[in-house]
Amino acid sequence: MKVIHETPVSALLDGGGALGQVAGKTGMDLAIEKALKGGLGFVAVRNSNHYGIAGYYSLLALKHDLIGIALTNSDAYVVPTFGRTVMLGTNPISVAVPAMEERPYVLDMSTAVATLGKMEVYARMGKKVPHGWAVDEKGRSCDDPGRVLGNIKSKIGGGLLPLGGVGEEFGGHKGYGLDILVDIFSGVLSGSANTNLLYPKTADGKTLPSLVGHFFGAMRVDFFRPVEEFKRDMDDMIRRLRNSPRAEGCERIYIHGEKEFELEAKYRKEGIPLYFKVYDDLKAIGGEVGVPFSL
Amino acid sequence: MKVIHETPVSALLDGGGALGQVAGKTGMDLAIEKALKGGLGFVAVRNSNHYGIAGYYSLLALKHDLIGIALTNSDAYVVPTFGRTVMLGTNPISVAVPAMEERPYVLDMSTAVATLGKMEVYARMGKKVPHGWAVDEKGRSCDDPGRVLGNIKSKIGGGLLPLGGVGEEFGGHKGYGLDILVDIFSGVLSGSANTNLLYPKTADGKTLPSLVGHFFGAMRVDFFRPVEEFKRDMDDMIRRLRNSPRAEGCERIYIHGEKEFELEAKYRKEGIPLYFKVYDDLKAIGGEVGVPFSL
Repeated sequence: MKVIHETPVSALLDGGGALGQVAGKTGMDLAIEKALKGGLGFVAVRNSNHYGIAGYYSLLALKHDLIGIALTNSDAYVVPTFGRTVMLGTNPISVAVPAMEERPYVLDMSTAVATLGKMEVYARMGKKVPHGWAVDEKGRSCDDPGRVLGNIKSKIGGGLLPLGGVGEEFGGHKGYGLDILVDIFSGVLSGSANTNLLYPKTADGKTLPSLVGHFFGAMRVDFFRPVEEFKRDMDDMIRRLRNSPRAEGCERIYIHGEKEFELEAKYRKEGIPLYFKVYDDLKAIGGEVGVPFSL
Repeated sequence: MKVIHETPVSALLDGGGALGQVAGKTGMDLAIEKALKGGLGFVAVRNSNHYGIAGYYSLLALKHDLIGIALTNSDAYVVPTFGRTVMLGTNPISVAVPAMEERPYVLDMSTAVATLGKMEVYARMGKKVPHGWAVDEKGRSCDDPGRVLGNIKSKIGGGLLPLGGVGEEFGGHKGYGLDILVDIFSGVLSGSANTNLLYPKTADGKTLPSLVGHFFGAMRVDFFRPVEEFKRDMDDMIRRLRNSPRAEGCERIYIHGEKEFELEAKYRKEGIPLYFKVYDDLKAIGGEVGVPFSL
């Protein structure tokens, strides 16, 4: 990890085209270190790779009572509003905010309506996806996940839609705008690649080092108001939302992060269920690199 | 405008329950001043009022080649995902980013699918709104704008939906999450009010000073990389998106801010059209306060 530029509150790092997780952890740790000293810390990372779960990085800020922010661009699966070619990643936004007795608020969302993984699940089940998730090669709404996935792979046009869906009727231009915004902070501010240029190849098709960009932020709450007061108000806000009247037929109003914290608690108690395919893959990969498999 | 807390990179201001525009301009100017000196400037404002257009404030950063951010909470018109009572404002996000030859990228979006103003336009025209914009008093999708507006006014339940619509199928929980996030920065970090508590009243119904909160940010691009390089890459990104293939039947792919910049140019040339109602109101209000009306 090379430091390209550094100030007391900011830094630009170079990931060297290596593992995104290493660049990501280094970047977020540096943002936290700067925030603890100077109140705010923002770090952009260029020439990196897919860094896994955005929420992993924002969560690192919480044990210091900081607000944590993690953005990244990603391989282009999303079409612009009124477009028909994948030009943007599902570019996720994650922000983690500490609370007092309540669990922290943890947003971790892609800026697309649905992820590629969700399309794959529907395709495997032989199910149609809802209209408003994806478009075909002509940019028209398409409910056939197999066709959309095939089109993305063969790059003949079509792809996922930004949050808000087709056109502007349901705010698709807002999701498209957030998607660009994440790319500005991750790809442009870092001086890495943006839009659909993150995974370059040579003229004869050889893979070149990847150019994914990340952006990390950490903010000290007490640079604005006392942490205890802030966390007490976070608790109050969370409880007011959770306890507000529910829609007919709905059992619960969630706060972001709750579902995942509850699943984590369950899995820590009962173990993590694995699909046979994943189980077999882990064994095979372990065998290849000489790591024995044991449960 | 009272300064409650201040550091080289941050401040907390008190708007004193007065005009939001005054608090907003003071807050953004202070964020810009701090960013010009220290690279980053973030300012939270408590006890303010509706500040008008969020984009006005983020745009102020551009003449200094800064990235500008403006967030605010607002009166509760939006129901949480799986809820049926208005608990959150349409809480807008505005971010302005400088480019070189291209016009700047200016995001200015509410975190709801549609605004209250849009519902009013449909109601006046006697038209139904699309399913996915709003819910009725039981939290079920509702296409009758008059009923939704009446319900919000009488507070019997129902309201606008967050970006992404009803439930989680189209990512409504993401819009709900962004809506909360804006409220955390504007309402909780400022120590103002959050959720549906921005406009308090006494037990006997008397209006108390409003508790709207804002959040402003300004960031120096050259704390990460040279400004010229950044702006050149912004131009490149904007052009790549604009010139990417269009969906069948679509004439143009827009960049955020373009529509408004073009309308501004047109209106500067041709004049600003006014509805008769607005024209009459301006005349009447001017008469009341002794300001003569002239075109």
